Amino acid sequence: MSGRFLSLEGGEGAGKSTQVRALASALEARGLSVLVTREPGGSEGAEAIRALLMQGDVARWSAHAETLLFAAARADHVEKVIRPALEAGTWVITDRFIDSTRAYQGVAGGIDDAAILALHGFGARGLLPDRTFVLDVPVAEGARRAAMRDGEMADRFAMRGEHFHADVARAFRSFASREPGRFRIVDANRATGDVTAMLLAELSDLLP
Amino acid sequence: MSGRFLSLEGGEGAGKSTQVRALASALEARGLSVLVTREPGGSEGAEAIRALLMQGDVARWSAHAETLLFAAARADHVEKVIRPALEAGTWVITDRFIDSTRAYQGVAGGIDDAAILALHGFGARGLLPDRTFVLDVPVAEGARRAAMRDGEMADRFAMRGEHFHADVARAFRSFASREPGRFRIVDANRATGDVTAMLLAELSDLLP
Repeated sequence: MSGRFLSLEGGEGAGKSTQVRALASALEARGLSVLVTREPGGSEGAEAIRALLMQGDVARWSAHAETLLFAAARADHVEKVIRPALEAGTWVITDRFIDSTRAYQGVAGGIDDAAILALHGFGARGLLPDRTFVLDVPVAEGARRAAMRDGEMADRFAMRGEHFHADVARAFRSFASREPGRFRIVDANRATGDVTAMLLAELSDLLP
Repeated sequence: MSGRFLSLEGGEGAGKSTQVRALASALEARGLSVLVTREPGGSEGAEAIRALLMQGDVARWSAHAETLLFAAARADHVEKVIRPALEAGTWVITDRFIDSTRAYQGVAGGIDDAAILALHGFGARGLLPDRTFVLDVPVAEGARRAAMRDGEMADRFAMRGEHFHADVARAFRSFASREPGRFRIVDANRATGDVTAMLLAELSDLLP
């Protein structure tokens, strides 16, 4: 039987990477084979593209070039890592996927959503997660958490202004309202274990 | 007045870079401002992408990821280098452009031509050269010339087989026959100066 594909989305400091790990442990405890990955990156080629995307000035890439680089990285990630794992029956949990491009480059960056989805159709054959969790925290709280981390967060996206991050947060909520079957919005402004329990509860229909 | 945009296309060892330089000198001798550039690359960001595209195993990238990387590099090249030069009245001569992607990733690589042109419409706003020269040499002669060069040619494309390069040559001739206003096929299996003279003759309608 094919594995399930889960993505966690949200702004900076929403707790995605913590919840990805906690959710993986919980699923493994149920006997499932689980692969944890992230975007941009997740495959050898995509990690090389990640370095181009995350380093340098905010204005290093135009919105169009940036969107194409994300699509190229995702195409490689899907083909080399995600699809083979799913076909082997492994559950895949990714820290960010297509909806981050739709939020950051799309709604907040001005690129048309239909164009982003067309690129995804070309590069990754349109693969979508079985379930996408939006970890929702107030933008100011996310910025506070992100600032407490080490230097990794000083990338080309974290350094944008509060208005940009508010656009991103609104974008995720908007996607969720338009596609309620795939999306679940989870209040992530609470204890880590409580958030993980909510994620598991919202997976009950997919669990064997 | 806006500058003119010229591209030179052809397989390995067709003499493109030699002719780009010779044509630039001839146009500068006529008092024109000329910028010489190349693809993949030609801008700081695109040269970084070039390194990802040209190095490594032939199978490093899937055809889809590779096509997206070329589109990203071209978007950056057009926005940061080509369009500003054209708007400043400079003539731009590039060693390869969109038709190389159509030939290598498209006809020889199996990616749909309409999809490649759609990516070009997204990334580079569909910019096409005013004139495209296809430097035509027999595939075996091109391979012989390429083999005489230094190590730079041992990239991911030069190492493909003869069948691949024959497909590329046929693709360029096919594009030229379908778009005779933009394309000129030039027999490049002759003395360098003779080839340059033919290029100049085929530019007479564009020269001031």
